[in-house]
Amino acid sequence: MTLVDILLGRRLANREGGGQKIGWIAGVPAMGLDGLGSASYGPEAALTILVPLGALSLAWIGWVIAPIVALLAILYLSYRQTIVAYPSNGGAYTVAKENLGPGASLLAAAALMVDYVLNVAVGISAGVGALISSVPALHAWTLPLCLCVLALVAVANLRGTREAGLLFAAPTYLFVFSFLALIALALVRLWTGHPQPVVAPPRLAAGTQAASVWLLMRAFAAGCTAMTGVEAVSNGVSAFREPVIRNAHRTLTVICLSLGLLLVGIAMVAHGYAIGAMDQTRPDYQSVLSQLAAAIAGHGVVYYVAMASLLAVLCLSANTSFVGFPRICRLVALDDYLPRSFALADRRLVFSVGVVFLTVVAGVLLVAFGGITDRLIPLFAIGAFLTFTISQIGMVVHWRRQAGRNAGRLAINATGATVTIVALVVILAAKFLEGAWIVVIAVPAIILMLAGIHRHYRRLGERLAVSGPFAVEETEPPTVLVAYEDRTAMTDRALRFAMTLSPDVIAVHLMKLAGPEAEEQVAPLREAFEREIAGPVAAQGIRPPRLMMIPAPYREIAGPVLELVDKIDADTPGRSVAILIPQLVLRHWWERLLHGRRASRLRAALLAKAGPRLMVVTSPWQG
Amino acid sequence: MTLVDILLGRRLANREGGGQKIGWIAGVPAMGLDGLGSASYGPEAALTILVPLGALSLAWIGWVIAPIVALLAILYLSYRQTIVAYPSNGGAYTVAKENLGPGASLLAAAALMVDYVLNVAVGISAGVGALISSVPALHAWTLPLCLCVLALVAVANLRGTREAGLLFAAPTYLFVFSFLALIALALVRLWTGHPQPVVAPPRLAAGTQAASVWLLMRAFAAGCTAMTGVEAVSNGVSAFREPVIRNAHRTLTVICLSLGLLLVGIAMVAHGYAIGAMDQTRPDYQSVLSQLAAAIAGHGVVYYVAMASLLAVLCLSANTSFVGFPRICRLVALDDYLPRSFALADRRLVFSVGVVFLTVVAGVLLVAFGGITDRLIPLFAIGAFLTFTISQIGMVVHWRRQAGRNAGRLAINATGATVTIVALVVILAAKFLEGAWIVVIAVPAIILMLAGIHRHYRRLGERLAVSGPFAVEETEPPTVLVAYEDRTAMTDRALRFAMTLSPDVIAVHLMKLAGPEAEEQVAPLREAFEREIAGPVAAQGIRPPRLMMIPAPYREIAGPVLELVDKIDADTPGRSVAILIPQLVLRHWWERLLHGRRASRLRAALLAKAGPRLMVVTSPWQG
Repeated sequence: MTLVDILLGRRLANREGGGQKIGWIAGVPAMGLDGLGSASYGPEAALTILVPLGALSLAWIGWVIAPIVALLAILYLSYRQTIVAYPSNGGAYTVAKENLGPGASLLAAAALMVDYVLNVAVGISAGVGALISSVPALHAWTLPLCLCVLALVAVANLRGTREAGLLFAAPTYLFVFSFLALIALALVRLWTGHPQPVVAPPRLAAGTQAASVWLLMRAFAAGCTAMTGVEAVSNGVSAFREPVIRNAHRTLTVICLSLGLLLVGIAMVAHGYAIGAMDQTRPDYQSVLSQLAAAIAGHGVVYYVAMASLLAVLCLSANTSFVGFPRICRLVALDDYLPRSFALADRRLVFSVGVVFLTVVAGVLLVAFGGITDRLIPLFAIGAFLTFTISQIGMVVHWRRQAGRNAGRLAINATGATVTIVALVVILAAKFLEGAWIVVIAVPAIILMLAGIHRHYRRLGERLAVSGPFAVEETEPPTVLVAYEDRTAMTDRALRFAMTLSPDVIAVHLMKLAGPEAEEQVAPLREAFEREIAGPVAAQGIRPPRLMMIPAPYREIAGPVLELVDKIDADTPGRSVAILIPQLVLRHWWERLLHGRRASRLRAALLAKAGPRLMVVTSPWQG
Repeated sequence: MTLVDILLGRRLANREGGGQKIGWIAGVPAMGLDGLGSASYGPEAALTILVPLGALSLAWIGWVIAPIVALLAILYLSYRQTIVAYPSNGGAYTVAKENLGPGASLLAAAALMVDYVLNVAVGISAGVGALISSVPALHAWTLPLCLCVLALVAVANLRGTREAGLLFAAPTYLFVFSFLALIALALVRLWTGHPQPVVAPPRLAAGTQAASVWLLMRAFAAGCTAMTGVEAVSNGVSAFREPVIRNAHRTLTVICLSLGLLLVGIAMVAHGYAIGAMDQTRPDYQSVLSQLAAAIAGHGVVYYVAMASLLAVLCLSANTSFVGFPRICRLVALDDYLPRSFALADRRLVFSVGVVFLTVVAGVLLVAFGGITDRLIPLFAIGAFLTFTISQIGMVVHWRRQAGRNAGRLAINATGATVTIVALVVILAAKFLEGAWIVVIAVPAIILMLAGIHRHYRRLGERLAVSGPFAVEETEPPTVLVAYEDRTAMTDRALRFAMTLSPDVIAVHLMKLAGPEAEEQVAPLREAFEREIAGPVAAQGIRPPRLMMIPAPYREIAGPVLELVDKIDADTPGRSVAILIPQLVLRHWWERLLHGRRASRLRAALLAKAGPRLMVVTSPWQG
């Protein structure tokens, strides 16, 4: 049992793939952490934009949250349809590819990738930031904490989506139940006329500004961050077990319903208890959800349980990306727009190249920003809404192409497309100068990269293509050269191998390889070869191997050997040459330090410069 | 012309080895920088120990320096003889090996290695420290400056000893001439009765202590650091061109004479001008040589030129190690006590593994100590004196074994041995608690490591040994397996190669390698193989390759292939199996990111687990 086995679990067989699939109960934490966690920062972001209105902000919060919830409802209905139409995989990439062509699908892929990467960095830094604001002693450990959470989520996902879903289920459900219960309690109290908060939130400052359309639009754009992560289920359909559609639908329903209830509830309770956003730079800063929980339940056990679950959900919201990113990369790789290794299932049937790539990129972002990724938040949500839009437009085209009565479905997706386009324009306009321009640069850059990779694979494919029947050109065995320093058990075996491959075997000895001061005993070496090898073989009536000594004036192995190969090629046109390299197989890593890598290096150099008639044979020797 | 060519120079041929050899003019900077530079810190270290005597220290400095210079004279005579007796290489390792046996030679090697490594770290940090005390603005850059100097010296030595010697000649000779001239001027002035310093050194504090034997012994031990580096010439004899002995003698003479004159001169001038050591932690600290130069020449151009040359010599004193360390490692490696790569001459005929190893270890020391390696200075000199002692005892044995009139030579080496033993004991006693105990631990640890490496090579040699004539066991061609995914130009070539090696060729296709969701078209693949490959080959009247499809339930290539090999081995006892892996040869580094390393990994896995009848053939394809 190695460390890797303990960390990642045993290797799974292909037939165990079904067991790794998840139902809706594990699906909600696996794919919903991002969406649910965003309930905490979406309303807060909207209220922060409204701060200049002072107490008046509470009058407007409903007008901002209502369209967001309506948008969520439309997206919910749209994605339900998408899952039915594309039950194997209904992500924006697939929908765009099938209905809009490769350009739109690459745009969707690039937007999704950007958003998934940002989600990891922002989610983890937001969660750790919230943790640190409750335990200030941890402040110096911000970056290490971020990286630890990243490592935890990455390892959980390398073990498999199922394991990650089960591992993260407790905090997810605890968060949803505790906040829904708190909100319900508050609403009952407000309804029954007991609007007195247990712990009063700080008084809102006087307004400095009147409400304007621009301000409300910006608040709406900020609040839309609550919607990132809704796409995740449609991208991850392939992770569900049978019945796939029902499991995906249930997961989507639980996520969207919980998120909608949380958004509406938070807006109503904030209004009822006069809770507004506070300045994050103030030392007594408290988040909206913290004020809300304290106002309803006081600073008791319930408050701490609810806040702890919120912290966990924020930290783990990165998990949504870890489910979605490798799957989208796999699809893109299957179409040759990404390296093919992204499409390979690893020991745990996870597309681990994608997981590792996401971890590294997010880790670099975290390190570059020191674990404080506030500046990345404005970049967020653009990718998501770009994806929503492409996906909806693709579905509109899909329904138009389909025969039958799809008018209702088409109407839902058309509405979705229109609304998300409007939202996208609002978000872009509101956030462009705050950093959204970076996304506007990054997405085309990624598309160019994907297209470049595709071109590479296409050209390689053209070079590799063959037509017509296979023809045998040469049946003569090759000349076999055996790298020969001195007679050992290893070279004996190599010579035996060589003699089974061809009657024409040459042992090649390079002279003065170690430098001008190397001591060489050319005559004894030649004599021993004749006496111990060539003579006895000839006596058996077999054509013996010859010994050839060539100088290595530049102490370099590949050059003289390739020269010799050229000479043999010229002498025996058409026939191939095989170079046999005896290689010592070492048992321990430290033994490699003692032996250099002459065999590997020679092989690499020969392969790099090989003509069309050279092959390299390695004869392992373990002693 | 690549970057490596520009940095290190073109590849040199073995026959150019002679051109890389040096004469005595380049020999002095190449091997004497350590010895000459130590003139600056040896007397200072002695005077620092004498500080508690106050002004009385000046009365005693002569009594401390005199035995050091006498010791130097004895060592000079001894090493002259050693060079004559061992003109190919007269280092302590060789002398001990030939006369005292492997135990003593390993002790000498370990002591030398420790001292060479310490010399690099201490020399560079001392030089950079002196530079920073003149330009305090550079203080924050201590470590980067140290690492830059280390890189400079390392690259100069990777270009070759000759280039390093020529590059560093100017500061070396400038240092020797300027300080000898200054001392001569001062002595003339003192002689003619003008003992007034131009810039008066700070007054010496009143004594707090009387002179004791222990204090004087400690001062002597501290001053002995001036002698490190004297060994270097005897270790580097092989770097000299013909006439080797004369060049080595001249180099040794210049170094020892200059060092002796500097030591005596510094002691006399310090006495005449009442110059003592200052507390290094005082902000107005000035080194002894700085006070001395200022007292003689004032703070003018001469002062700055002299001090600049001193800084350069200190910084570059690491160079001595870069000449000696790789050569001693080569000798040790030739005896199989170090990895054999230490004995290989590289593109510039340098033993670059030793150079790189020294650079890395010294770099780690510098980084670990932040570029301030004061604490390493007490560890210094122990290795040197241990080496001196072993070398002298070895020479005594050498002369006793030789026939002829060697009584005089034996006497010189016997005196040298006695004196260095006494000095070693004094140094160990005086410095044990200050850190010398680390050397007492490190040296045996290194010896154990060297012995372990030797044991590994010896056991391997026993396993590799063969006796008796070579016997052919099997002449049947092997079964050749060809890794086959789908028909391409690459697999076509691989199959052609395979068919020249053996009539028994099997194309092996692994199913479901990418994961349970991989789409496989088993029937069309088989049909295409029959139609396009097997059919046409059979029609040519040649035995066609077969296609074998085996499942890869764990998405791992080597396992199923090795199982198949076991099966074939059982079916065809005695016959070997060759596995032919087609490998795409990529032209650009970034292409490797797109292709994974499936061929290399499969080969590595097969080699690691190969039985005695398996060979691995790589068929390169460049398209």
